[in-house]
Amino acid sequence: MKIAVDAMGGDHAPEAIVAGAVAAARELNTEVVLVGPQDDVQAQLARHRVDGLPIEVSDAPEVIQMHESPGMALRKKRRASIVVAMELARDGRADAVVSAGHTGAAMGAALMGMGRIPGVDRPAIAAVLPTTGKTPVILLDVGANVDCKPHHLQQFALMGTVYSNRVLGVAAPRVGVLSNGTEEGKGNDLTTATTELLRASPGLTLVGNVEARDIFSGVADVIVCDGFVGNVALKVGEGLSLAIRSIVKGELLGWRGRLLKLYVAPLVGKVRRAYRRIDYREYGGAPLLGINGVCIIGHGSSNARAIRNAIRAAAEGVAHNFVQEIRSQLPALNAAVAARST
Amino acid sequence: MKIAVDAMGGDHAPEAIVAGAVAAARELNTEVVLVGPQDDVQAQLARHRVDGLPIEVSDAPEVIQMHESPGMALRKKRRASIVVAMELARDGRADAVVSAGHTGAAMGAALMGMGRIPGVDRPAIAAVLPTTGKTPVILLDVGANVDCKPHHLQQFALMGTVYSNRVLGVAAPRVGVLSNGTEEGKGNDLTTATTELLRASPGLTLVGNVEARDIFSGVADVIVCDGFVGNVALKVGEGLSLAIRSIVKGELLGWRGRLLKLYVAPLVGKVRRAYRRIDYREYGGAPLLGINGVCIIGHGSSNARAIRNAIRAAAEGVAHNFVQEIRSQLPALNAAVAARST
Repeated sequence: MKIAVDAMGGDHAPEAIVAGAVAAARELNTEVVLVGPQDDVQAQLARHRVDGLPIEVSDAPEVIQMHESPGMALRKKRRASIVVAMELARDGRADAVVSAGHTGAAMGAALMGMGRIPGVDRPAIAAVLPTTGKTPVILLDVGANVDCKPHHLQQFALMGTVYSNRVLGVAAPRVGVLSNGTEEGKGNDLTTATTELLRASPGLTLVGNVEARDIFSGVADVIVCDGFVGNVALKVGEGLSLAIRSIVKGELLGWRGRLLKLYVAPLVGKVRRAYRRIDYREYGGAPLLGINGVCIIGHGSSNARAIRNAIRAAAEGVAHNFVQEIRSQLPALNAAVAARST
Repeated sequence: MKIAVDAMGGDHAPEAIVAGAVAAARELNTEVVLVGPQDDVQAQLARHRVDGLPIEVSDAPEVIQMHESPGMALRKKRRASIVVAMELARDGRADAVVSAGHTGAAMGAALMGMGRIPGVDRPAIAAVLPTTGKTPVILLDVGANVDCKPHHLQQFALMGTVYSNRVLGVAAPRVGVLSNGTEEGKGNDLTTATTELLRASPGLTLVGNVEARDIFSGVADVIVCDGFVGNVALKVGEGLSLAIRSIVKGELLGWRGRLLKLYVAPLVGKVRRAYRRIDYREYGGAPLLGINGVCIIGHGSSNARAIRNAIRAAAEGVAHNFVQEIRSQLPALNAAVAARST
């Protein structure tokens, strides 16, 4: 098993990426190919003990920055790290790709390099989120497709179901449609049509509408929405965590706060761990579903630990072969849709 | 100033509602009319010291439950507490209405009772949310209109601007469009068209796209979106708070946790206060904007304190006369739209 890692993607690249890759090579049963400007990557590697670890470097002189327009950047920078990483996977020189860089660029490079699974209309970015239940929930799409049709959400439901089943080990994943109320009849034009379509879809277990307040409560294993709504849902959580953190920090200022801090350091640790459980970076990043290969996108602010976890998620994706499973289940779904529309 | 309060709306009605109304009558310079089944309301009032307080009771024998379809319920229950409360405002026997009941029923009853401000196409539910900045942000619509057109969001922007300026005291409220990225060009069909329209709108200060992670960070004073997206944004925050709370609670179980608790009780108080600041119940509920009168909707789980705050918000709304201001600013906005489309 060999994972190509975009050494230049993310706010803390290349330091954190290389450190995470070294940890993965050491602790997991996985080979790693670091993709980026040779000298930069080697300089980072020199800071670690890597003797005997299964780590290669693949040279890619260019880097796509977070602020760049992905379409433009991909046209111009043919030797960008994310592009080269995808090509390694395309050519069979790596089994999967991990990047914490520009999500749009990663999706574009994945489409150019690996292409779509035949029959998939729109690949989706799937967030794997913690719940207060036993298994994580998959929310998709969280950003690739801002305007969707019911059939796109139906394919998201199938891809999420396969991933939940194969990679997360959920026996019969329950699919929900993200909506503004659980009652039947709630929803907008898109979600009401999607629910109707899902009800008639083979291979899916529909639980109906799921409210946003229940995303984390484990009422569904897969929750589908368009990429605009999914992005809002994901980012609100992030913003709220940051706001609460900043307010708690404010409460701990001043001499009374400082005194308090002496006593509460242990709890602060507990609260931090609680936040971490709800933090999707810990869950190893977001798989791109519908791509004809395994590609995991880490959060831009990924630290070494998050990168290591993303590499583990990529390896698990390969081991459980969810791509092949999506490919084999999709025709029945698409046939059911075609039968409906005739 | 006299506020009609739906005594039967909310999970803790009528106890919490009556207790909150009594607190408002005692602490704020406000008269209160409690609307609900006479005997139930009087029985609750008997549990408080109300001698000399400006509290009346207006009989309404029926109640609309949270699970009812609002359209059906409003047709059947002509003497429901929320309906009678709106009628008091319509007839000039109250200056504003507060309810923590069924939001859809409240909106319907408000439309039947008070009607729309002339020129408003779609009234909206506006959430007044805390930020890490100095003033709260107004997010609208959060649920009344699941499928919107750009012109609806434009009217939301104006109504939110007037409310922020008049009631929250923001000098020149900055308007943002909730989107999946701050860069120009990000967004879905609705938001890109809305941004274009807002750029050409008189009386509005546009800051452009606002990401969901920045709702609480104070980059805009008014953020517009359709009611589906707004509902998701609001409810994710709620769900995340609940999930974190439940996880923190879990961390504090066991003998080590219990020991820890002894030391950390003071911090738990601090964290609770931090949560409370981010909790929109504390902010007095959501105004219905576009209704030809003042109507504040409290959260379904409102306690007495939340009801008292909602009554204060209603009184402030009346005092600052934002309804009249929307009425006088709307024609210029609508004229600009009409000029564009010819």
